[in-house]
Amino acid sequence: MTIQVFGHKSPDTDSTGSPIVWAWYLSEVKGTPAKPVLLGEPNTEAAFVLKHWELDKPEIISDVEAGAPVVIVDTNNPAELPDAINTADIRAIIDHHKLVGGLETKGPIDITVRPLACTATILYDLMGEAVAQAPRGIKGAMLSCILSDTLEFRSPTTTDHDRNVAQALATDLDVDMNALATRMFEAKSDVSAFSDAELLRMDSKEYTVAGKELRVSVLETTAPKVVLDRKDSLMASMVDVAKEDGADQVLLFVIDILKEEATLLIPNDLVKDMAEKSFGASVTGDTVVLPGIMSRKKQIIPSLTL
Amino acid sequence: MTIQVFGHKSPDTDSTGSPIVWAWYLSEVKGTPAKPVLLGEPNTEAAFVLKHWELDKPEIISDVEAGAPVVIVDTNNPAELPDAINTADIRAIIDHHKLVGGLETKGPIDITVRPLACTATILYDLMGEAVAQAPRGIKGAMLSCILSDTLEFRSPTTTDHDRNVAQALATDLDVDMNALATRMFEAKSDVSAFSDAELLRMDSKEYTVAGKELRVSVLETTAPKVVLDRKDSLMASMVDVAKEDGADQVLLFVIDILKEEATLLIPNDLVKDMAEKSFGASVTGDTVVLPGIMSRKKQIIPSLTL
Repeated sequence: MTIQVFGHKSPDTDSTGSPIVWAWYLSEVKGTPAKPVLLGEPNTEAAFVLKHWELDKPEIISDVEAGAPVVIVDTNNPAELPDAINTADIRAIIDHHKLVGGLETKGPIDITVRPLACTATILYDLMGEAVAQAPRGIKGAMLSCILSDTLEFRSPTTTDHDRNVAQALATDLDVDMNALATRMFEAKSDVSAFSDAELLRMDSKEYTVAGKELRVSVLETTAPKVVLDRKDSLMASMVDVAKEDGADQVLLFVIDILKEEATLLIPNDLVKDMAEKSFGASVTGDTVVLPGIMSRKKQIIPSLTL
Repeated sequence: MTIQVFGHKSPDTDSTGSPIVWAWYLSEVKGTPAKPVLLGEPNTEAAFVLKHWELDKPEIISDVEAGAPVVIVDTNNPAELPDAINTADIRAIIDHHKLVGGLETKGPIDITVRPLACTATILYDLMGEAVAQAPRGIKGAMLSCILSDTLEFRSPTTTDHDRNVAQALATDLDVDMNALATRMFEAKSDVSAFSDAELLRMDSKEYTVAGKELRVSVLETTAPKVVLDRKDSLMASMVDVAKEDGADQVLLFVIDILKEEATLLIPNDLVKDMAEKSFGASVTGDTVVLPGIMSRKKQIIPSLTL
């Protein structure tokens, strides 16, 4: 039975590219039939990456069948996976996020979690010498995943190892990383087609802080003005999104990739207090700039207090 | 701050030896101060292994302090770990059991789970060329862990890789594996000093099957008669142990390492029915022999039905 390889819901570049890379490795190198699938439409950057490297867009699935063999990449969080995930035959988990608990397996399986910026970096290590056999599109997907997750090495999640692997891939492919990253970030910044609710849910994770359910959304962009021009309707939309998703509050951090700062929208006093307590910010209007804040995982979540 | 490395409660050879091996690697190779600790008295086999390889018995701790840096080996189950485990600073998890969920980390960490028979085999792989630098006691501990967890390669959990690593270590150490395993199993079989309740809890894990809380205990021995001669008092003790530990039933499988079979005690109709349904056994007296059954993980747990 063909193994389905997938990342998290609302797939970004790493959750779109890493399943393609790993399914190639399982099928072509390990001789274990596997195919990449997606748990939703890829974001605009991931769609650009597929097109750029001439990769087929994987099939989108809405759930998994009981007993179906699957490999999970780029998450270990059941909330970001199909509802029936614990009924599937989970064969392996490869991830770079904190362990949240909740996934269960029937027997011992391969689990590899590393504190690196990108799943594709871990895949590169696990593949070892087989990387040399990978076609251009597979190597290109790995490079794009790393450029995406590290924001071209600007994110504080970046490790020397992510950088070295990206450099090795770029040299091998004879690709100008800066030019590729620029085109990727432009694609990600093109959010004109999305509704406010879609923007709020595009790159969003739920966390519980001091008993409050927070939906912590980020938008990484090279054109923050495009998003911030919509701040009034975005803040209005937060109320509905929070209600529909069972959250107490939606937070939106607009990450300026080039200036290396975040702008947090301040729709109410709860978020104002949170911004002041969490980041030592002094808030006067309905936005606040947080210099140097680029990473939800490394900077935002560890700081959030209420 | 020195990292504490530990395995599960009721430490067997793998949960005693692997912390010693990994703490050596972290301290001496990686330059990260670490020390092995135990979550209880090592079993008689593990005590023999410490003495045989002239290793110091690690300190026994009863809990961990909030924020203390720790590395967990040979389990990912919070029930087998200190109560305060999720308040500790978990730096890494290295294990070969199924994922049960429940452990949480504050950030992304190193997690390596592999479907191998023994944690020490994974440590050997992770250490790579550094194995060559390991002193005799460290290599000997790894070899003993593998012989213990594989029951000298008789257990169906054994993989070719476990076998190859053990063989490489034995060759390097110039050790007769069969002679070493025989002495280890003799040590494990010497259960005369233990009360019935201690025997029932010595190598025991809790599982929920069809809504019943089962304490599934195994005793691996080369002298099953010594244990089976005590079957009446062991079955009487099951009632108290189940009550004290909040379980519905204790199951005791006496594993005959040399004959490669298990004898299950049958204290009541619940266990009789379970033996018949789970293993297709035909039960007449107060014990039943299950030919070929050696592994709780691979054979007993996947079969248990009510």
